[in-house]
Amino acid sequence: MSNARSVQKILLTGAAGRIGTYLRERLGARFDFSGIDRRPVDGLDSTVANLTDHDAVLGAMQGIDTVVHLAAEPRHTPDIWWDVLLPDNIVATANVFEAARQAGVGRVVFFSSMHVVGMYERDEPWSSIANGDYGDLDPTDVPLVTHEAPARPDGPYAASKIFGESLGRYYAEEFGMTVICIRLGTMGGDDKPGPDARSRVSWLSRRDLATMVERCIDVPGIGYDIFYGASANTWKIYDTPRAWRVLEYQPQDDAEDFRT
Amino acid sequence: MSNARSVQKILLTGAAGRIGTYLRERLGARFDFSGIDRRPVDGLDSTVANLTDHDAVLGAMQGIDTVVHLAAEPRHTPDIWWDVLLPDNIVATANVFEAARQAGVGRVVFFSSMHVVGMYERDEPWSSIANGDYGDLDPTDVPLVTHEAPARPDGPYAASKIFGESLGRYYAEEFGMTVICIRLGTMGGDDKPGPDARSRVSWLSRRDLATMVERCIDVPGIGYDIFYGASANTWKIYDTPRAWRVLEYQPQDDAEDFRT
Repeated sequence: MSNARSVQKILLTGAAGRIGTYLRERLGARFDFSGIDRRPVDGLDSTVANLTDHDAVLGAMQGIDTVVHLAAEPRHTPDIWWDVLLPDNIVATANVFEAARQAGVGRVVFFSSMHVVGMYERDEPWSSIANGDYGDLDPTDVPLVTHEAPARPDGPYAASKIFGESLGRYYAEEFGMTVICIRLGTMGGDDKPGPDARSRVSWLSRRDLATMVERCIDVPGIGYDIFYGASANTWKIYDTPRAWRVLEYQPQDDAEDFRT
Repeated sequence: MSNARSVQKILLTGAAGRIGTYLRERLGARFDFSGIDRRPVDGLDSTVANLTDHDAVLGAMQGIDTVVHLAAEPRHTPDIWWDVLLPDNIVATANVFEAARQAGVGRVVFFSSMHVVGMYERDEPWSSIANGDYGDLDPTDVPLVTHEAPARPDGPYAASKIFGESLGRYYAEEFGMTVICIRLGTMGGDDKPGPDARSRVSWLSRRDLATMVERCIDVPGIGYDIFYGASANTWKIYDTPRAWRVLEYQPQDDAEDFRT
């Protein structure tokens, strides 16, 4: 089958980080990647700049079809404070959306986090699932937290991500851009779920990440949407299956298969 | 009837502004007000400081029962940009919640805005109501946008307010504080609705404002909640009546009575 489309140009913010590296490894043959990061990125055409530098962000956006906005302070513990979150999560994200608009970039895939709804994990039945106290729970009967449930951030980091999601919705509705938010779960450094029960809910394997992002880049017909990013884990708190239906893909992995 | 409680101490941020002034005029006999503002406030015990100064905010919180957080950049047009919104709406609000927690303040009333859901006004039937194209619409049949509807900010200002609401929810859920968000409508300088149709939806009279804030200070049993702030206007887009039920008060005014 011939493919008449030219190869899409994808800008990865935070390209030097783990997720940027996984995406380049797995999707490098399909897309023309470039990057922007504070650090140089081996083997990638990239801009070395802080995302608080709006001009640098705008420069990196030229000719780009889709921005995958990964760059952020990723630590979500309550001690990570505004001195870090303001520049790295708030200002950087405001710059990314505005520069994308200015440069005519049609699509932004914004990496948010399950932490924006993390407080649901203190309520039942989700608390028991997060703690591995399964008792008589049937995983197929658990009510799932949807993408439209009111945000319940579990810390300042999560509030900074809600800001990004909300600002993205404005850019989508006001300027006709496609903005897709991925509420990312947990990615183990060894591509396996952690030993804790919450990882059995939140784990996302590298290949399932790659497929999800590929679909977020390709899927037509979306103005703004939010999807939870996890593998096909048996135990769920969030409505991950909606992503598989709307984005039309099937994740391959299940954290339950790694239980020892 | 004797009142055994001591007079509540209320800190108004942005005390020199319009709303702070209205509140002091109408509720000054009931509460012991103090203020913090960049400008001195005539006749009020107040701290002159920028709310980006965390130490100053913390100092003003000592011994306070409830903070009414009014201080903000109020302009919501898209040209009001992050150079203003970051310090005045993001940093200031982060400081207010954190200082309240540190000082043991039990309650924060946060002034948000109807603009956080402003994009609903582009959809029917709300668009027709916002534009005064009433046609065959019966105001009692209009579906109302609830406080749990997904946020749809109509600009950067609105995104800054969503940040504040979300951060407030974190403080309420994590630290047991009471946080009440008022999504404020429109207050005319002459205490009358403007001539435009949207004002007939969003108008809040000064006496209805005062009653609403008084109830937000007094009402027991709330951890976190969001209420739309408007008078008993005939034409509605947002679910203002829920505030009257939950807060148990009856607004007195209706913008419809001012139509000429």
